[in-house]
Amino acid sequence: MGGPLHDVLNPRSIAIIGASEVPGKAAERRTRSLIQGGYRGRIYPINPKRETIFSIKAYPSVLDIDDTIDLAVVVIPPRFIPGAVEECARKGAKGVVIITAGLGETGEEGKGIEAQIMEIASSAGVCIIGPNCSGMFSGAARMNFLGIPGLEKGPYAVIAQSGNVIDSLSYYAKVRETGFSRIISIGNAIGVRLPDYLHYLREDPDTKVIMLYIEGITGGDKLIQALRETIPVKPVVALKVGRTQAGVRAAASHTGSLAGDDLIISAALEQAGAARVSNVDELFDIAEVLACCPAPRGNRVAIVSEGGGDNAIAADNAERHGLQVPILSREIQDRIRPFLLEGMPAGNPIDYGGTAEENPPVIAQCCRVCMESDEVDAIYVTGFFGGFKEIIASHVGELEEQTAYELLALVRKYRKPLLVNSSFARGGIKALEILRTGGIPVFESSERVAQGMAALVKYARDRERVLRARPIASEPN
Amino acid sequence: MGGPLHDVLNPRSIAIIGASEVPGKAAERRTRSLIQGGYRGRIYPINPKRETIFSIKAYPSVLDIDDTIDLAVVVIPPRFIPGAVEECARKGAKGVVIITAGLGETGEEGKGIEAQIMEIASSAGVCIIGPNCSGMFSGAARMNFLGIPGLEKGPYAVIAQSGNVIDSLSYYAKVRETGFSRIISIGNAIGVRLPDYLHYLREDPDTKVIMLYIEGITGGDKLIQALRETIPVKPVVALKVGRTQAGVRAAASHTGSLAGDDLIISAALEQAGAARVSNVDELFDIAEVLACCPAPRGNRVAIVSEGGGDNAIAADNAERHGLQVPILSREIQDRIRPFLLEGMPAGNPIDYGGTAEENPPVIAQCCRVCMESDEVDAIYVTGFFGGFKEIIASHVGELEEQTAYELLALVRKYRKPLLVNSSFARGGIKALEILRTGGIPVFESSERVAQGMAALVKYARDRERVLRARPIASEPN
Repeated sequence: MGGPLHDVLNPRSIAIIGASEVPGKAAERRTRSLIQGGYRGRIYPINPKRETIFSIKAYPSVLDIDDTIDLAVVVIPPRFIPGAVEECARKGAKGVVIITAGLGETGEEGKGIEAQIMEIASSAGVCIIGPNCSGMFSGAARMNFLGIPGLEKGPYAVIAQSGNVIDSLSYYAKVRETGFSRIISIGNAIGVRLPDYLHYLREDPDTKVIMLYIEGITGGDKLIQALRETIPVKPVVALKVGRTQAGVRAAASHTGSLAGDDLIISAALEQAGAARVSNVDELFDIAEVLACCPAPRGNRVAIVSEGGGDNAIAADNAERHGLQVPILSREIQDRIRPFLLEGMPAGNPIDYGGTAEENPPVIAQCCRVCMESDEVDAIYVTGFFGGFKEIIASHVGELEEQTAYELLALVRKYRKPLLVNSSFARGGIKALEILRTGGIPVFESSERVAQGMAALVKYARDRERVLRARPIASEPN
Repeated sequence: MGGPLHDVLNPRSIAIIGASEVPGKAAERRTRSLIQGGYRGRIYPINPKRETIFSIKAYPSVLDIDDTIDLAVVVIPPRFIPGAVEECARKGAKGVVIITAGLGETGEEGKGIEAQIMEIASSAGVCIIGPNCSGMFSGAARMNFLGIPGLEKGPYAVIAQSGNVIDSLSYYAKVRETGFSRIISIGNAIGVRLPDYLHYLREDPDTKVIMLYIEGITGGDKLIQALRETIPVKPVVALKVGRTQAGVRAAASHTGSLAGDDLIISAALEQAGAARVSNVDELFDIAEVLACCPAPRGNRVAIVSEGGGDNAIAADNAERHGLQVPILSREIQDRIRPFLLEGMPAGNPIDYGGTAEENPPVIAQCCRVCMESDEVDAIYVTGFFGGFKEIIASHVGELEEQTAYELLALVRKYRKPLLVNSSFARGGIKALEILRTGGIPVFESSERVAQGMAALVKYARDRERVLRARPIASEPN
């Protein structure tokens, strides 16, 4: 894992050109999050009008720094950027991240400045990230010049064309107590482009799943190639806007993307096997499922609940999302029936009815039979798990926690995905926290479980398909 | 509002046959929730083996009570039920709610008992609710024999064929700090049927929106008639399962409903103009939108945000759900532009960009122009509203709260729906609580805003359509 992008994403030193400590300004937020984020390298604020920025010595220009500079972050008005990039090139910087907006996305004048920047950068071999981007985060190096405080290290990489989408994902990560390997805001992407980041992240050991937010990009052929090389290694979840006329118009005025882009990008995502989503909350939830759950061998789902209504809703959700809910064999039903009340259905959906409410371990017993059976590829637990103690009595809480540990052990042993829908998912309930921390996703919405399982099934299939379609390497003689 | 159902839903006295105080039992939960729920009428526990139940004098049979009994709740084994109903009839009860399960839904023997019950009840003119139901709640009378503690009065009526769905809705109401006018678990519905409840709830002044959870019912013609009479008066949101093969199987084993039911019920819901949903969380969210928001005059939506990405996502969501996102006239754009940063789009979606983060009142200013314009029927606020104080600085919180009050005033004045998507919706944030309490729904998911708006537009149209299709009453001479 070398290459210029390695140095850009893992710099030993960063200059922030236009560093500021004026509260509320974009430059101040980036400077502060970099300095206060605990970055493991050296930081050089550049501001000719200041002696220090946040108590760190400031310099008039990068050329005044008596150190090598791997990366420069630029937050100065457009007309000063070419000069700054020139100085960075002379200083030997590997990359320049241009946060400043108001360039190519606003018209010809901005496009002209972008061309100037690229001319300087290309001849000097400097990577350009942005402009019109919101910054970058790298978990391992604690490098954070996104202006979003409190980001933590975690398994998710984000490549996005919207600062606000990054803000949303950051907030969701905080709520879910997880974090990111990398967050990359690509902006106008005049230098480094989406396929380049995919190639890098494919090999990045800190990244388990890649989340994409795309409005429009050029070069569909390179994108499809990069995706096809990435999918067999790790899953990609994509939120691509501009799927409707109004969406196209919104994306065009945001990042200048074109209407025709959607067809090309959609085809690329489809062919390469990326999971598609339409909203930011979905983006995170589906990425979580793909990061946590083992790959299913097929699409046959067992649905289990204490409620017939929840089972019927889940069954409809599952089939609508392309999953199968097979009738279990008599043999499996006979093994499940002892855990159910007399006359309750064991054929799938499985309904343990009121027994679970007072005796939650029955859930793990039913799940064990499904895990052991080769008629089932994944398990969809729906209903009130976690909330029985509220419904019945507080002593049930301990049994629910015990059951949560049993479910985790089952997933570890049998390597089949198990996802949970609970009406009490938002309740801060310990049994559900045990599941989440251990790698079993829990959703308030039953639909999201079906959607997550469908994404798992699709990823397992697409991975196979893309691997099979690869040219076979010639055998050594 | 008279009729037998009135007395059943507003009884002055209730006998609970099979009353119990053995913890964890279905009978105990119903008895306890009725007694502890603060019911405004008189309660008579029936249990021949006990002197008192929860410190209230118990009776061997209803016939031993020296008072009239309006309603009896039955929680005794199936074989004793016909005798109990007979006694209730002799006692002059208006209705009997049979909680007990294991009757018609389990086979011929149960069907036989149901026939016996109906023979007794019909000749005596007693309404039968259930069997195999989970109970009832009436907000005004604080009558609660659902076994779910802590239910509050509110604008929503629920008619459901699943106890667990009622449990979920109850929990969602608690989280949202709202409640119910009526909750009716119809069970096997051998006596009072879904159309009867619809007729009653249509006239019920405490009910603003009716939520339905249906697996299968007989008598599609009566259902469509009842729905067509209800929709012009108040909205109905329906979750109907059994839309897929697996869903049909699940519903069949839960309530014995038939595969063919779905076609009939779906057609009835569609023709009458009920809103359709697939999940319980959706059911509540869409009902909330229909209960809180004014009716839109058309489907033209203005989308406003501080983020171009959020705007593009919202625009795609809106069009996918059949809403229009029209380009606003030059005149309107000119009125909006002074509130935006130089060069930001005002054409719809409207992007106030970074200004809102530090100066949230700009949101209300943009919304005011849209409210005043006859080019816009509804407003879709998306992004981080409520979270600016977390992103920027805590002093912004006060400005957000002020903005929330301004948005409420705009909705009150101009009577156009305004819905909010915020990534911070779950954060317990005061500005968002002000919105919710004042009647502006706030959702974490951008999609849910589009879905809610589409339901509002559909309801307004269907209401018109159903009203127009009514036979015109002959004019008085």
